[in-house]
Amino acid sequence: MNRMVHHRADINRVAAAIADPTRRAILERLARGPARISDVAEPFSMTLTGFCKHVRVLERAGLVRRTRRGRDNTLALRPEPLREVARWVLKYEQFWNARLDRLQEFFANEKEK
Amino acid sequence: MNRMVHHRADINRVAAAIADPTRRAILERLARGPARISDVAEPFSMTLTGFCKHVRVLERAGLVRRTRRGRDNTLALRPEPLREVARWVLKYEQFWNARLDRLQEFFANEKEK
Repeated sequence: MNRMVHHRADINRVAAAIADPTRRAILERLARGPARISDVAEPFSMTLTGFCKHVRVLERAGLVRRTRRGRDNTLALRPEPLREVARWVLKYEQFWNARLDRLQEFFANEKEK
Repeated sequence: MNRMVHHRADINRVAAAIADPTRRAILERLARGPARISDVAEPFSMTLTGFCKHVRVLERAGLVRRTRRGRDNTLALRPEPLREVARWVLKYEQFWNARLDRLQEFFANEKEK
């Protein structure tokens, strides 16, 4: 619990972590449930070493938790740091909505002509 | 219009662009309205060259539009590419909500004890 309270998502690390399609795909896989690292790695055509580098970036961003279970490591999704990114991005929602409103207005006017 | 329809936000570039506090601050400044590049640069303690590098990253991500007006360039916010990031991140909202629900349950149970 302490960890959760004190953990303040670092938006720099989290945004950088999700700026890569392999890392987003890993998170998408883990959204279906925790999985062994070798199983998660399997569909990706890269070396396990390359794959593990991506996992480390996700771990440092607090997006993935790795636990040793038997011989293999298990990965689990930690979605909380994504909230900070969502919060920051959604501040701009009003702006893209405003632009779309103006666009719809434009087309409404075009139709009337 | 064509440009808008064909422009498919590149989530890699957009997420990488917002992974930097200077670039986020530039977007925050431009959310208050378009501004001359020298005015936007002023509060940042960096060279104009360094500042312009950040602007170029934002331009390439489609988040900023630069137009020549008189002697100086004007920068304007283009918020649309942030939608793709918002859409991707919000797919995980259910997961962080689920975790918070479990947490609240835990505290409710603790209280009852």
